[in-house]
Amino acid sequence: MPTKIILDENEIPKKWYNIQADMPNLPGIPHNPITKKAVEAKDLAPIFADGLIKQEFSTEKYIDIPPEVREILTLWRPSPLLRAERLEKLLKTPAKIYYKYEGQSPSGSHKTNTSVAQAYYNKEDGIERIATETGAGQWGSALSFATQFFGMECTIYMVRGSYEQKPYRKMMMQTWGAKCYPSPTTMTNSGREILKRDPNTSGSLGIAISEAVEDAATHENTNYALGSVLNHVCLHQTVIGLEARKQLDIAEETADIVIGCAGGGSNFAGIAFPFVRDKIEKKNPDVEIIASEPAACPTLTKGLYAYDFGDVAGLTPIMQMYTLGHDFIPPSIHAGGLRYHGMSPLVSRLHADGLIKSVAYHQNECFKVAVDFAKTEGIIPAPESAHAIKAAVEQALLCKKTGEEKTIVFNLSGHAHFDMSAYEAYFNKTLPDYEYPAELIKESLSKLPHIED
Amino acid sequence: MPTKIILDENEIPKKWYNIQADMPNLPGIPHNPITKKAVEAKDLAPIFADGLIKQEFSTEKYIDIPPEVREILTLWRPSPLLRAERLEKLLKTPAKIYYKYEGQSPSGSHKTNTSVAQAYYNKEDGIERIATETGAGQWGSALSFATQFFGMECTIYMVRGSYEQKPYRKMMMQTWGAKCYPSPTTMTNSGREILKRDPNTSGSLGIAISEAVEDAATHENTNYALGSVLNHVCLHQTVIGLEARKQLDIAEETADIVIGCAGGGSNFAGIAFPFVRDKIEKKNPDVEIIASEPAACPTLTKGLYAYDFGDVAGLTPIMQMYTLGHDFIPPSIHAGGLRYHGMSPLVSRLHADGLIKSVAYHQNECFKVAVDFAKTEGIIPAPESAHAIKAAVEQALLCKKTGEEKTIVFNLSGHAHFDMSAYEAYFNKTLPDYEYPAELIKESLSKLPHIED
Repeated sequence: MPTKIILDENEIPKKWYNIQADMPNLPGIPHNPITKKAVEAKDLAPIFADGLIKQEFSTEKYIDIPPEVREILTLWRPSPLLRAERLEKLLKTPAKIYYKYEGQSPSGSHKTNTSVAQAYYNKEDGIERIATETGAGQWGSALSFATQFFGMECTIYMVRGSYEQKPYRKMMMQTWGAKCYPSPTTMTNSGREILKRDPNTSGSLGIAISEAVEDAATHENTNYALGSVLNHVCLHQTVIGLEARKQLDIAEETADIVIGCAGGGSNFAGIAFPFVRDKIEKKNPDVEIIASEPAACPTLTKGLYAYDFGDVAGLTPIMQMYTLGHDFIPPSIHAGGLRYHGMSPLVSRLHADGLIKSVAYHQNECFKVAVDFAKTEGIIPAPESAHAIKAAVEQALLCKKTGEEKTIVFNLSGHAHFDMSAYEAYFNKTLPDYEYPAELIKESLSKLPHIED
Repeated sequence: MPTKIILDENEIPKKWYNIQADMPNLPGIPHNPITKKAVEAKDLAPIFADGLIKQEFSTEKYIDIPPEVREILTLWRPSPLLRAERLEKLLKTPAKIYYKYEGQSPSGSHKTNTSVAQAYYNKEDGIERIATETGAGQWGSALSFATQFFGMECTIYMVRGSYEQKPYRKMMMQTWGAKCYPSPTTMTNSGREILKRDPNTSGSLGIAISEAVEDAATHENTNYALGSVLNHVCLHQTVIGLEARKQLDIAEETADIVIGCAGGGSNFAGIAFPFVRDKIEKKNPDVEIIASEPAACPTLTKGLYAYDFGDVAGLTPIMQMYTLGHDFIPPSIHAGGLRYHGMSPLVSRLHADGLIKSVAYHQNECFKVAVDFAKTEGIIPAPESAHAIKAAVEQALLCKKTGEEKTIVFNLSGHAHFDMSAYEAYFNKTLPDYEYPAELIKESLSKLPHIED
């Protein structure tokens, strides 16, 4: 029988792991986009729940997962850890390849791990509605799924281009009771402003963020939610790595290499942080931890570690992170979830301190291994997750050269049921492999904001 | 914590349960469509694998599942049994509602339980290619998924209307290495014949079956595969009910009511047969077993128990079963998997002998409970599975009236990731509830074939 390690429902972690307790250096404090001064907890209160703000700044090592959150996570957690033995055979590698599969959540990716927690803390604060943005629709689906359990309303500003191209995602959100609008809308000042200039715009994630933040800031009992980047989001995702650690123990394996794809950084943080802990605590000092990015948007790999805005318009706090420049618009690759100019400040700091590495791949080489994976392991991976598979395959092929029997673990963050058109484009050979947009990034990086310390 | 019963990978059943060993009466022997005489095993050999033909006629009670098949089933099995506590609360019912979730298979439904077994036995016979038909795409996806593991080719004749409306399904099959063609094609006599008469036809399942059977019959080392109806298909699906029985034991529950939706009958057989065994063996003599059908195609509920062809053109063996008449074309409801004029001969016989019951529902009432289910349990059900939920909800509401704390178990056969347009139509109130097409059925039933005993 193949190796598949299943945990009992009681083995869903009872606490999240907060890496802020263990990092040799913390990221710099975020700064206010207007005053350019350091942000305090109270500055975030107008749009974030109290429980989430506390987590954002906490340095407690373990934070209790509320029973109400664990109860909902039980619908799809613990997620399985599987060994990709057929893929190993195809590659003729002596390496052992394990993957943690997050695509069994009802919305199809890891995003629900944080959306449920965020909905819970907002409900605790008496919030009645959450506004957010979504690009390809993964995050909007996950938040819609979560808010309904707590009887809250959910308003999603979905980038118009995706809204029109991915009607199934929109219907999924509606089925879970959310209201989903093509952004820019005429419901916000930011939306109306853009539409005045360009009535036929297909929108952008930057515009959608502005609309959602404005909605939350200008309405009573309405908050905003973000699906990646922030510390509390990375915290909630650590259930992935905590479970995987336990499952590897059961399989009597020690990870040599841990891999996640990285856009805003949250699914990577989820699989990686518990292993970074092992590295820091010298329990597994030699474990290599690798973030896999798209070559079209190589934030960690080619970006600058600096202070920058989280959004295009410069409305969010200024964060210390790897960035390609806040007005850099990545080429339109199919891994929509990896098209972000910045990176989680926690992931960025670990990279700057040499605790993790990064690699970048073009989309065609990622789809190639995704098809190999589908043919050997059965699951058709989301385009984002394909970047993690590509890195795992590269490492396994390296082992083939050296003869090393390394244990490789990667996070398969989601399936491709809503992304099959990307596979169609791949098979039809119409997917461009964008050159690294060095000039664009250079220009964008020349516009970094200055902060007051 | 909510109740979710997970089995270990070693607890996937080691044997299928063959209800032919226990039935008080077996269905009549199939008859040749041309000679109208009883079919023997050798008559099926040109298009079916030897192992499958043996199972079709076997009266052995338990049949070993080959290790090679179990190994692949492990990718998504054992499937979880969950208690729908939030749905119970919404309904304010004293009943306990459990559901077995088959949507975690890579193709999204129970169909892979049999496609893997069918691929295995064909490989054993040295078969190099399998041809089949698919309507909405579930079966085609499942067979593509299975054949790739055994290095076989797969040719899918997909009803042209669906081929054009559901491009994602087609891409899924291609990713798994199958060749999928819009039927009718110019590759077969049956296809060319139809195209000559009507070049713009959108095709039908009947035509696609004819093309696939012709392909298998006229090519060396090529066999045909069917995704439901036949005895061996029902046999392979019994892993669902066998696991569910074990999971209920762990939860210390005894099923009072067991429910599955029924089109060709295989997912219903899968959940139901092990409980029918318990009823026959008097281990659980009072268990009620209910097949839930669409009102637009009420085969068990309003059909005739008779000998009829399995396809529109009259090319398949004549089977003793409930039928609405082989040339009855059901209205175009969204539960494509339930649009079949006939019913598994095994399921039909059990119904004729009073061991199981049937109910029929309109599609809007099914989508209504499907949305309630998505909002309480998180999973968005396939339109087919929504019929099982509707029956479960009706039984739970009955318990509310009587105050009985019955234990209801239903099979959630798949998710709706490729059917979200059906939900859109439901929300937009554009879904018709077809009247029971009594006149059409009456006409169709007047054309039943005569057999020679």
